[in-house]
Amino acid sequence: MKKHNFSAGPAILPQSVKEKASQAAVDYNNSGLSLMEMSHRGKEFVEILNKAEKNVRTLLGVDDNYAVLFLTGGASTQFFMTAMNLANPNDNIAYVDTGAWSSKAIKEAKLFSNVNVIASSKEANYNYIPEIVPPSMTPKYMHLTSNNTIYGTQIKEWPDVTCPFVCDMSSDIFSRPLPLEKFGVIYAGAQKNVGPAGVSLVIIKKELLGKVERQLPTILNYQTHIDKGSSFNTPPVFPIYVTMLTLQWTIDNGGVSAMAKRNSEKSQLLYNEIDSNDLFVGTAQVSSRSNMNATFLLKDESLTDAFLEDCQAAGIVGIKGHRSVGGFRASMYNAMGLDSVQALVDVMNSFSKKHG
Amino acid sequence: MKKHNFSAGPAILPQSVKEKASQAAVDYNNSGLSLMEMSHRGKEFVEILNKAEKNVRTLLGVDDNYAVLFLTGGASTQFFMTAMNLANPNDNIAYVDTGAWSSKAIKEAKLFSNVNVIASSKEANYNYIPEIVPPSMTPKYMHLTSNNTIYGTQIKEWPDVTCPFVCDMSSDIFSRPLPLEKFGVIYAGAQKNVGPAGVSLVIIKKELLGKVERQLPTILNYQTHIDKGSSFNTPPVFPIYVTMLTLQWTIDNGGVSAMAKRNSEKSQLLYNEIDSNDLFVGTAQVSSRSNMNATFLLKDESLTDAFLEDCQAAGIVGIKGHRSVGGFRASMYNAMGLDSVQALVDVMNSFSKKHG
Repeated sequence: MKKHNFSAGPAILPQSVKEKASQAAVDYNNSGLSLMEMSHRGKEFVEILNKAEKNVRTLLGVDDNYAVLFLTGGASTQFFMTAMNLANPNDNIAYVDTGAWSSKAIKEAKLFSNVNVIASSKEANYNYIPEIVPPSMTPKYMHLTSNNTIYGTQIKEWPDVTCPFVCDMSSDIFSRPLPLEKFGVIYAGAQKNVGPAGVSLVIIKKELLGKVERQLPTILNYQTHIDKGSSFNTPPVFPIYVTMLTLQWTIDNGGVSAMAKRNSEKSQLLYNEIDSNDLFVGTAQVSSRSNMNATFLLKDESLTDAFLEDCQAAGIVGIKGHRSVGGFRASMYNAMGLDSVQALVDVMNSFSKKHG
Repeated sequence: MKKHNFSAGPAILPQSVKEKASQAAVDYNNSGLSLMEMSHRGKEFVEILNKAEKNVRTLLGVDDNYAVLFLTGGASTQFFMTAMNLANPNDNIAYVDTGAWSSKAIKEAKLFSNVNVIASSKEANYNYIPEIVPPSMTPKYMHLTSNNTIYGTQIKEWPDVTCPFVCDMSSDIFSRPLPLEKFGVIYAGAQKNVGPAGVSLVIIKKELLGKVERQLPTILNYQTHIDKGSSFNTPPVFPIYVTMLTLQWTIDNGGVSAMAKRNSEKSQLLYNEIDSNDLFVGTAQVSSRSNMNATFLLKDESLTDAFLEDCQAAGIVGIKGHRSVGGFRASMYNAMGLDSVQALVDVMNSFSKKHG
């Protein structure tokens, strides 16, 4: 039976990507060697790394003013690296607090610079994206979290400010077109729309660098990785390969415009069911609803186990909500087809007939 | 034709490990999902992570006074994290300079503490392990690089000092038994004897932590990873799985004592050929020769291409030396069988008959 993988991350990968990754793990390109056994300085991996970078540039229209880096340490490492590399201790930097991950970014940035939290939806357990009024001071940058997996919210319109955005886009990068010129840094852990866990993507406007006075460990300086083409030290070879394949799949399936259309269709199908089914209720405010992660509750919590059993019987996995919101979370990243969302909607519908 | 993979790193993996990794990349344990698509909080990966830790403890006899961590960022990140977490600015820390990687560790540690380089073989292009005389001051720790891939040297006897060792063991961990009690920290990029690129192993004596005054970004504090069991943020799921498999293979093949015997046999076979073959000469001093990486030159450099052609014809790959030493480097990590070293020796021998 086909599994419908609604996991929040690590998350669904395209079938063709998994098959190519499987082959490369045991014998890459008929070389007699696994890709995992090959030098990161050899022509095979250098080609893969170049292709991965090219795919990022193609998908988002990234020009040479920006560097495209493949690093490790996840978005959690970028929380402090961005502030450490971009802001001096007395600079003002503006942060929008839209959830647990924003809060962590704020905490780490405070070690390095003067953080101003200019908007927050904490008082409502982050169930909406707060209005972002341009701050009176001119911050060095404004930090945003574009999509909040835990709460099922997503920024729909980019704020109209003059400073560059530094944006944690871990859970919705490549899900839609972007006005790239507004961004100074985009960073993302790979394990949703980009590839598998173990690599992070950083897109950075080069002119923002070289302006802080503090001494940085070599590997924490973005310029090191720009100068060394993401190979200052041994990069995560296999995760980068699977990333390159996933981005190639995204291009081959129409790029970010096609993904935006497909993601909108999937989420509309599910949100329509949530709104029309008497047993369920959505947790995020409608105008802030994410196209990546739909969060919803059973009005009668005592039915939870019965619903999860029906999901399991239909091959639906990864649907349990985060503990801080409860209920259910359906993550519908790029690689998920409409058929999987339809399978979930069918279960919700028949569950309603049994228990409504 | 079988490939004999002498690459310095990323390096050879056991065939059975590659086959299991290949299966997990497309369908883990008949779940219908790739391991790369599964939550790092799910029971499948938690079991893998626990097993990986248990395998490290089994192989090196690591007790509960030590934490076993799986991090990212390679040994290059440990160069600064060790000093950052263990030493205050005015503390003395002692470093032994045995090559390019030691030098990098020294450079990064200087950002955080008072580095004393107490021994070096730089004047001889690092072709031997210098004598390590216990320093008069009592350093907080002494940093060692146990094996130097570029120069083909390896520490054979551990210095007799009272402070704990902090040791970069990236290229020979699990190749031999260790007097663990001498070590405060052992760190290693995985991509030689541990697993694939993309994960780093850190073994750390817990009582050494909590003694520095500086504020650390959360993810750069070892205590964070101890408290969160290497899952503070999404760990590199697939590299950790392949690591667990590789360590299990090491246990199943007799553990570190058996590896030491096997590694000694392999390196003796090759060093005997280097010493008895008139065309070749070793670059490292005999008493410092590494059992992991043998470095050697053709006395007549003009024969280089002809030798590399003969190697290629025999399925031998990854034999080219590092640019700073030249010639050839044969890396014979745990997963390599004696048959592969014999294949190289046979080529050297027949090459000598043709050109000697």
